[in-house]
Amino acid sequence: MATPPAPDELGFEPDPTDPQPIYLQLTAALAEAIRSGRLVVGTQLPSERLYAQRLGLSRTTVTAAYGELKAAGLVRGYVGRGAVVIADDPDRAFDDAIAWPQLASRLARPTHPNVLTAEPGRVAFGDGWLHPSLTPRAALAACAGSALDDPELLTKAAPILGLGTLREALLEMLRANGVVAAHGELLVTGGAQQGLNVVARALLSPGDVVVCESPTWHGAFRAFRAAGAEVAGVAMDREGVDPDALEAALIRLRPAFVYLIPTFQCPTGRLLGLERRRRILELCARFRTPIVESHVYGDIAFGETPPSLKSLDEAGIVIHQGSASKTVSPALRLGWLVAPRAAMELLAPAKASLDLSTPALTQAVLATFLRGGGYARHLPPFRAALETRRDALLAALALHCPELRWLTPQGGLYLWAQLPQLSHAAEVEAAAAEAGVWVRGGEAFMPDGGTSSHIRLCYASPALDEIATGAQRLGQALRSVLHRHRDSAARATAFASV
Amino acid sequence: MATPPAPDELGFEPDPTDPQPIYLQLTAALAEAIRSGRLVVGTQLPSERLYAQRLGLSRTTVTAAYGELKAAGLVRGYVGRGAVVIADDPDRAFDDAIAWPQLASRLARPTHPNVLTAEPGRVAFGDGWLHPSLTPRAALAACAGSALDDPELLTKAAPILGLGTLREALLEMLRANGVVAAHGELLVTGGAQQGLNVVARALLSPGDVVVCESPTWHGAFRAFRAAGAEVAGVAMDREGVDPDALEAALIRLRPAFVYLIPTFQCPTGRLLGLERRRRILELCARFRTPIVESHVYGDIAFGETPPSLKSLDEAGIVIHQGSASKTVSPALRLGWLVAPRAAMELLAPAKASLDLSTPALTQAVLATFLRGGGYARHLPPFRAALETRRDALLAALALHCPELRWLTPQGGLYLWAQLPQLSHAAEVEAAAAEAGVWVRGGEAFMPDGGTSSHIRLCYASPALDEIATGAQRLGQALRSVLHRHRDSAARATAFASV
Repeated sequence: MATPPAPDELGFEPDPTDPQPIYLQLTAALAEAIRSGRLVVGTQLPSERLYAQRLGLSRTTVTAAYGELKAAGLVRGYVGRGAVVIADDPDRAFDDAIAWPQLASRLARPTHPNVLTAEPGRVAFGDGWLHPSLTPRAALAACAGSALDDPELLTKAAPILGLGTLREALLEMLRANGVVAAHGELLVTGGAQQGLNVVARALLSPGDVVVCESPTWHGAFRAFRAAGAEVAGVAMDREGVDPDALEAALIRLRPAFVYLIPTFQCPTGRLLGLERRRRILELCARFRTPIVESHVYGDIAFGETPPSLKSLDEAGIVIHQGSASKTVSPALRLGWLVAPRAAMELLAPAKASLDLSTPALTQAVLATFLRGGGYARHLPPFRAALETRRDALLAALALHCPELRWLTPQGGLYLWAQLPQLSHAAEVEAAAAEAGVWVRGGEAFMPDGGTSSHIRLCYASPALDEIATGAQRLGQALRSVLHRHRDSAARATAFASV
Repeated sequence: MATPPAPDELGFEPDPTDPQPIYLQLTAALAEAIRSGRLVVGTQLPSERLYAQRLGLSRTTVTAAYGELKAAGLVRGYVGRGAVVIADDPDRAFDDAIAWPQLASRLARPTHPNVLTAEPGRVAFGDGWLHPSLTPRAALAACAGSALDDPELLTKAAPILGLGTLREALLEMLRANGVVAAHGELLVTGGAQQGLNVVARALLSPGDVVVCESPTWHGAFRAFRAAGAEVAGVAMDREGVDPDALEAALIRLRPAFVYLIPTFQCPTGRLLGLERRRRILELCARFRTPIVESHVYGDIAFGETPPSLKSLDEAGIVIHQGSASKTVSPALRLGWLVAPRAAMELLAPAKASLDLSTPALTQAVLATFLRGGGYARHLPPFRAALETRRDALLAALALHCPELRWLTPQGGLYLWAQLPQLSHAAEVEAAAAEAGVWVRGGEAFMPDGGTSSHIRLCYASPALDEIATGAQRLGQALRSVLHRHRDSAARATAFASV
């Protein structure tokens, strides 16, 4: 997720000639930034310690300023997570005739709170976006310039299924990867996330069940639940989802469909083996259960990978999903669905009812990039850059975080690290943020809720030269958590021996 | 909706040296176009009569070719609507393990079939898109060019709430229209249609009720039903929705919210009066029921209009929706929601779960257009052009369609015409298409289903110089329908008197 301006970008400078004490000067500056909307609701303020350090003030000054903002109803404190902006004009809220929180959809159930975000100074392993240096920006800008030669791009809405030129180019790219599809079998979506909503709207009814890997991408289970479905996770091992566990789920739950990310899964980075792919296809065909295959990391392989489920699918049961966000640029917000024609007759109206169609301009940029060979030229150095980043992370973790255990990812963007005993992901996430590194605790990815003993590290997001620093800070955070646990264990022992 | 290539753009030329009869040559050309995906599934083939005329062939030749395509499973005939492409490889369908149509979501209930589309040669009053000549294409292209100077636009996903520059520019524009909102109260959406889905996802649970005008925009009730809600329509008169009928619905149905298009309503073009606006705000505040106000036609006024509900809203109950699609260009796919901050805390996560965020590039184009004064310069000539089109339609209808009755629209894009007795909108729509003019029958806009005695004519869509021709063809179609009714009435009378 992108970042609003952070408090330490506001350029606060204590004014020694001002008769007001510095903590009130700081309070006024922050309150003004909040009221004007420069610090939007939901922004997390830096921890008192870090912020004091950066401003060259004492910690008590910052603590006092935060206290004023809390009293004014502008921020709220969260234990272990600093303060978060909750309102930009608290007085006005009392005029509201409507208690909005009570009107929230029952389907939008509270999930794991997601208050931590990127913040300048915090090494960002936490999200799944590419660092801008990984995107082919010059080539894309050139493609945008030449795409603009078509005057229709800025005057007409694109067709529901997508711009003809982009669909052609995608079908050709897919064919090269063993996915042979006809024109009427491809639908362009506003990123893969919208694609999940298209599938959900087309195929799910309230009370249906979706079976997915556990853990998995949280945006998927949010989309499925918003359509009224229940979501059930199936356990994974080193080689991805276990076909026996999947079969048991198919028998027990009769899901509307199975959602899988077989290739470099999010968040685990796992690669589903070829034999398992065949078994799962056979299983789902036998149960006449569609598979929604996310292949958004499929092109980010550092070595050989098995073919996609779609390319192995003889029974016509796979809806295949791709995206430009993980391999080209998240700015384009473009994804695609490839599905049997009869499925497309359900998917296309669902897409239309979501947003009528995807912008033509961004589609034309990607079409030009694909057709001109830009993608083919981009992919090898892109993969190499990610492999370098993975290696940098592996080396740094080995040095700074010997407490962690992981499988070396063979592609994709994520390393899924197992925490040492006693520590939980949520507390490590909080301690890491305090130490200046943003990681994503595994709880966010649990479709069935519950705690997690893993964290997800995205080696694509930070600047390359920040990776070692990030690992070092994570190591500090891990040890602070472990010390805390040992201390309390020691106290418990001492107490027990009294 | 945009158009796939029509059959008569395929450049079929009978080959006199070919030993095959011409009907088989035509069959082969069409089958090849369908199999290759140039004629996509869902494309409507022209009527045999029109197509024969255009190709300079006899009608029986075209009829024979269509018969071959039907026998091959590539097209299907619909009474009164010609033939529609239904498959591009009928043999493959039988391999499918899954009966996709049976998997359709129960929430995606069949609505009025929408098989008629724009087609070259058919004057297009049927959709709600602007004719490209009405969009400020040169200015938008220049804005796109200068927006591309920002390298971040093609490398980073925009923030969930939208690009800062666009939000600033929209807030300023809204302030000029009496809508004062803070930064945290505006959310950019992928067109107004996505905005409706954001509201639905945030506020609706299965079994909830939404109350709206009847007739209304069908995309709205599709979005609300996809969230599991029931939709109930309230009758309108010349001045828009009747507040007494709305109060009765509030008492009886206790809706989750009320959806209204008070200013130049779609499809009726009605303008809700100021006194009614105040009464409805008072009513809904008393019932603590939010109003979702679509203001997407608000800037297209040919004279004075009452202020928007949002600008009159003292109780904080209105979620206000705008769009660039009806005033700048549908190609941008940009809309926005303005809502009280507490509502925005529900809307923003709903937006994130739909597609994470809206593309930065298109947002930057609109931001540049607004900030540089492009919109302020565009609006007066744009309004004048639409008024000219409205006047052209009024004059042509008065001349060619004396059977119709209407209220003169004071803004917006639509004229809502009442049909003469005995005729139903669906049959007029079909007869009009046959005569070479595309109009939208009122059934599509009925939230509670049922027939309609109205058609919607969009004077923004066709080329200006086609408006008179379109009205002339519509007049022919009306008279053919009326003659048919008189004939069958005469037969019925004759039969009754036997």
